[in-house]
Amino acid sequence: MADQAPSVAMEAVLKPSCDLPEDMPKIRGYDFNQGVDLQAVLKSYLTTGFQASRLGLAIQEINQMIEKRLEPVEPDEGNECDKSGESKSGCTIFLGYTSNLISSGVRESIRYLAEHKMVDVIVTTAGGIEEDLIKCLAHTYLGDFSMPGKDLRQRGINRIGNLLVPNDNYCKFEDWLIPILDQMLLEQNTEGTRWTPSKMIHRLGKEINNTESVYYWAYKNNIPVFSPALTDGSLGDMIYFHSFKNPGLILDIVEDIRKLNSQAVFAKRTGMIILGGGLVKHHISNANLMRNGADYAVFVNTGQEFDGSDSGARPDEAVSWGKIRTDAKPVKVYADASLVFPLIVAETFALHTDKLTAGKKTD
Amino acid sequence: MADQAPSVAMEAVLKPSCDLPEDMPKIRGYDFNQGVDLQAVLKSYLTTGFQASRLGLAIQEINQMIEKRLEPVEPDEGNECDKSGESKSGCTIFLGYTSNLISSGVRESIRYLAEHKMVDVIVTTAGGIEEDLIKCLAHTYLGDFSMPGKDLRQRGINRIGNLLVPNDNYCKFEDWLIPILDQMLLEQNTEGTRWTPSKMIHRLGKEINNTESVYYWAYKNNIPVFSPALTDGSLGDMIYFHSFKNPGLILDIVEDIRKLNSQAVFAKRTGMIILGGGLVKHHISNANLMRNGADYAVFVNTGQEFDGSDSGARPDEAVSWGKIRTDAKPVKVYADASLVFPLIVAETFALHTDKLTAGKKTD
Amino acid sequence: MADQAPSVAMEAVLKPSCDLPEDMPKIRGYDFNQGVDLQAVLKSYLTTGFQASRLGLAIQEINQMIEKRLEPVEPDEGNECDKSGESKSGCTIFLGYTSNLISSGVRESIRYLAEHKMVDVIVTTAGGIEEDLIKCLAHTYLGDFSMPGKDLRQRGINRIGNLLVPNDNYCKFEDWLIPILDQMLLEQNTEGTRWTPSKMIHRLGKEINNTESVYYWAYKNNIPVFSPALTDGSLGDMIYFHSFKNPGLILDIVEDIRKLNSQAVFAKRTGMIILGGGLVKHHISNANLMRNGADYAVFVNTGQEFDGSDSGARPDEAVSWGKIRTDAKPVKVYADASLVFPLIVAETFALHTDKLTAGKKTD
Amino acid sequence: MADQAPSVAMEAVLKPSCDLPEDMPKIRGYDFNQGVDLQAVLKSYLTTGFQASRLGLAIQEINQMIEKRLEPVEPDEGNECDKSGESKSGCTIFLGYTSNLISSGVRESIRYLAEHKMVDVIVTTAGGIEEDLIKCLAHTYLGDFSMPGKDLRQRGINRIGNLLVPNDNYCKFEDWLIPILDQMLLEQNTEGTRWTPSKMIHRLGKEINNTESVYYWAYKNNIPVFSPALTDGSLGDMIYFHSFKNPGLILDIVEDIRKLNSQAVFAKRTGMIILGGGLVKHHISNANLMRNGADYAVFVNTGQEFDGSDSGARPDEAVSWGKIRTDAKPVKVYADASLVFPLIVAETFALHTDKLTAGKKTD
Repeated sequence: MADQAPSVAMEAVLKPSCDLPEDMPKIRGYDFNQGVDLQAVLKSYLTTGFQASRLGLAIQEINQMIEKRLEPVEPDEGNECDKSGESKSGCTIFLGYTSNLISSGVRESIRYLAEHKMVDVIVTTAGGIEEDLIKCLAHTYLGDFSMPGKDLRQRGINRIGNLLVPNDNYCKFEDWLIPILDQMLLEQNTEGTRWTPSKMIHRLGKEINNTESVYYWAYKNNIPVFSPALTDGSLGDMIYFHSFKNPGLILDIVEDIRKLNSQAVFAKRTGMIILGGGLVKHHISNANLMRNGADYAVFVNTGQEFDGSDSGARPDEAVSWGKIRTDAKPVKVYADASLVFPLIVAETFALHTDKLTAGKKTD
Repeated sequence: MADQAPSVAMEAVLKPSCDLPEDMPKIRGYDFNQGVDLQAVLKSYLTTGFQASRLGLAIQEINQMIEKRLEPVEPDEGNECDKSGESKSGCTIFLGYTSNLISSGVRESIRYLAEHKMVDVIVTTAGGIEEDLIKCLAHTYLGDFSMPGKDLRQRGINRIGNLLVPNDNYCKFEDWLIPILDQMLLEQNTEGTRWTPSKMIHRLGKEINNTESVYYWAYKNNIPVFSPALTDGSLGDMIYFHSFKNPGLILDIVEDIRKLNSQAVFAKRTGMIILGGGLVKHHISNANLMRNGADYAVFVNTGQEFDGSDSGARPDEAVSWGKIRTDAKPVKVYADASLVFPLIVAETFALHTDKLTAGKKTD
Repeated sequence: MADQAPSVAMEAVLKPSCDLPEDMPKIRGYDFNQGVDLQAVLKSYLTTGFQASRLGLAIQEINQMIEKRLEPVEPDEGNECDKSGESKSGCTIFLGYTSNLISSGVRESIRYLAEHKMVDVIVTTAGGIEEDLIKCLAHTYLGDFSMPGKDLRQRGINRIGNLLVPNDNYCKFEDWLIPILDQMLLEQNTEGTRWTPSKMIHRLGKEINNTESVYYWAYKNNIPVFSPALTDGSLGDMIYFHSFKNPGLILDIVEDIRKLNSQAVFAKRTGMIILGGGLVKHHISNANLMRNGADYAVFVNTGQEFDGSDSGARPDEAVSWGKIRTDAKPVKVYADASLVFPLIVAETFALHTDKLTAGKKTD
Repeated sequence: MADQAPSVAMEAVLKPSCDLPEDMPKIRGYDFNQGVDLQAVLKSYLTTGFQASRLGLAIQEINQMIEKRLEPVEPDEGNECDKSGESKSGCTIFLGYTSNLISSGVRESIRYLAEHKMVDVIVTTAGGIEEDLIKCLAHTYLGDFSMPGKDLRQRGINRIGNLLVPNDNYCKFEDWLIPILDQMLLEQNTEGTRWTPSKMIHRLGKEINNTESVYYWAYKNNIPVFSPALTDGSLGDMIYFHSFKNPGLILDIVEDIRKLNSQAVFAKRTGMIILGGGLVKHHISNANLMRNGADYAVFVNTGQEFDGSDSGARPDEAVSWGKIRTDAKPVKVYADASLVFPLIVAETFALHTDKLTAGKKTD
């Protein structure tokens, strides 16, 4: 009697399984007996599982965006975005990222994309603008997450995660920015310029005139950059100070929302690459609702869905809103973008530099 | 020889300890043999450890804000915020929250704070505005995180975490909003009104005229509400549509940053209560840099510092920037705010309703 | 032409929605105008959304376990667990928790459950055993997460999150434990006792003889406690030291796995309440596979599924393995258990103390 | 008057900063204008910030372990671990990992380390053993995190994150394992073998006799593998079934804790590489307390400290316990190990294959 394991247990544990489809990928990681071949290591990620597989899928998804982008498209009549006469691409790529990534060395990957006009629309936060400009004026350093805030404040050192930014950098930024704000106000008052965040960013990119800057290249390559809450950062501090000395500057966010939405509405196809959450994730996704959803999407962030935040929502939540097409295959990689975005660029845009830059005037 | 454990191990494991200070709190949780007394359970959280202790500290920190707030303050000459002649409070409380909390039932806690003018300044995102207004028009429902996006989109149901919002709600919102936008544009063109996000929110609060609305009460109680990226949501969709039919509306974000910063600069003391990350966390913190730091701060969010995001940064990072005073005792509670904010309100503002509302005209 | 918003945008944004079922819960939070009634606040959580709703569902799920548990069941012949002649319960409740919760004040909630025999089987880690016993010898204190490790080590203070445990506590534990190990070895050698972790824990509960101890009550109430890696902690340190002075003790884990699985196999129904991840989550779930799945399940933890860990897996992953029944409605609450478990106990077991303890000999 | 920004704001924002040390690393990412050079990309991570910098530091830390490991060491008298006469290494490397990593393609990286005897001690969970053996019998597949558990169970497919394991794999495992259990019991009864988890794993590695298996190589290379809760998984299921047909097998965990601790106590130096949390993280760390702390440590996991779990604790918590030396520079990388461990191996062990395998008998 007791010499037999309980049948309920045997049956539950040894339940037979149905066959899986034959073409289902088998899990297998990289075999280092083949030598150290990093490209092959990354290629093996697709069958490694968990977020490694997600990274592999993200690379595939972006390479799809690029492939579609390279398809020629006829200029479309009546398209607001197309007044320049430039031929549209087969896939308009929206790139979004949070401020911290510009503070980090991910900035150089983003600058590369802007420099070679590999993306079409950029959305970031105020810090995502100013930190790029400030880096043209002074350095950001590597510190540690555990450095005490009180000591740092007393020394005038600002911490961003494990990065350190001397406060003098912001003083230099003020010196640089205030005359530009004076000039912008003058143009508003004399030429009737109606400033918006995207126009201001375009101007700042021109003024910084530095090939290390993302926004210099966005200016050169006419990549619109949207940042509706542009006052939420050091730029806002300076605008605030400036409003006392020289009041009257207006930054209008209505014109920008139309400009951004038009980028989505009149695109043949769209792809979203969004690093981080908050405003940048929502703003790009919402613009893509205007076209009943993006065709391609890659999210890289560390947010989780359980608290109901948009930041942590899975792409499938965006599908319910019509922000991603119901037949799309969006990919979310749960990771700090600093770990994966340079690898993604290496396996996508940078591999296709020749094709992507053919005929571009990016001098 | 082998009958003795290695001395290195014995010494390492059995290292004697120095005495801890006598007044150090001992860990002890609630004893349910005392019966079910939820207030006593929450009181025991301070000595329960981990985030329970953090919740206990957050309640203490907010009660400090309230105590200081109740101290009478002389009206200050030259204070931009004080033109109304209202007596300032001893502690200006900034409340920030992300959109999802308004979609959730946390809205009712926030409405209570606005209704009784228990907070002085509000910062939220576009969704944090519109979802409150929309809830006056139609309901939001409880669903599940795992409901497939494709099915939902086909049925016109939008998912926010485990909440469901029928898309008809947004249609109703359009019907309600468009005439207001017409009127706003008219006033801009005829009366020279210079609209900002905070002025628009004030107007929407007036128009909704519904005691269930947070922004109705913010309007009634003259609580300024800031949302610089007000176009980043359904409001932006409607403004976009409206820009075709009736173009020309301008929403200026410069005036608002001055107004927000002034709230911090001219306050006697300030306290920050910030639920969630992204823009709302940064915007309030940055305003408090203008006064060399908030005196009190409570953050409730699920962000982590490891990715260098401002959302996940510990309060001590804000100290390095001068956004929180170096002698403050800021508290971060790592939790979904839906779990803890109603409890926090219960143990802070709601306990002091009588004192906080004495002499307020909140009819 | 341009006076009409693009139709694709209008149609996507204003897509009509299908009706939701009439009985779908509407989102509404607690109205503090009703006064501070914490029980009503918690009741409102079910319709608050996000993890508040999950907490509400967890409370319902556990109350279901309790209801079924109170249903009388006929003693079953041939049941390994039933040799005592005690009448079985209608729902065998497995409680699991990680070590840190015993270090925290959650211990008092757990002790209450053991004291009143409200749960049937306990699974924890080595630390989950020893920290309870050590607390009978000396205190644990509230510190802070940011206290530097080097300073603490030099002072002989161990940190567990924001808790501090003087190392002297472990010295006291050694003094207490070593004679018991001597005695256990003697019994093994003279009486043929075959020690297992669960038998050792039973003995330690007897020896500690302290009504503040979880394992004292588990001993008194014959609640089996499983901890297969019982050597992974201070207990292991002491067993290691003891093995030099007095070698030969054997702790067998085979007998315990049979004993644990039998608890699941021969239960009428089972419920799992698992706080935290790692071994305790897997061990209870795996035992419930032996009965083709638990009928009820509540997980409280902060793990996420994206890294493929069992700790972070949603309950639905356990369904695929047969560890939870396919028709069960398991609930996961994403939260630090210190924040929610005392509230859960307050709204479940503690509310039903009278019924649950009727006829129990828990003196 | 109003033409000057408030001085408190100006002073707070424009606070001058002290100089940072000249040798502080400047943040700069990889410049893809240099072409796609993945090794250079990874090298740039050190100055990229956030977790990219942590990955760079982890690679440095492990290369330190390897450098010290290659230093020749005199065999030590009285060393329990040294009875074989093998020369000890200058740094004993402990590798720990959770079960899911063996299910994933990270297994191949781990097998490489075992195959070439690049690590000295392994600690894993039951699943970390059996999944390796089962993979020698049948495949694991790539699925998706969102596949519904009920459907999967009905088809007999088990899900591990986004991996799928047909239940037939476990049936095959039973067929393979039961005769080995019979034999083990026979040896226990006839030869007096006192089985421990590590001895059983050694035997299973021999029996599987497959060069794809981690434990085959651990057996071949005499790398001890510890797994005190070896019954917590499919192995436990089979041992449970076997206990009915052929009862009496004993698995003792006392002998193993002494063996594990000795590995730490008698090492010249130690390094810990721990992927994931739970038992594997604690067990290795606790063993290193026996030598007053590891000299080197790299943790890769997704746990967070806020809930007080050992899994999420920063290395600095282990310093307070004496598990890591107070002068060590431990590194935690917050990431899914599937994303970073193959890259780590590529930049550490695999780069030094020649030196590490010189004179090893790994045929």
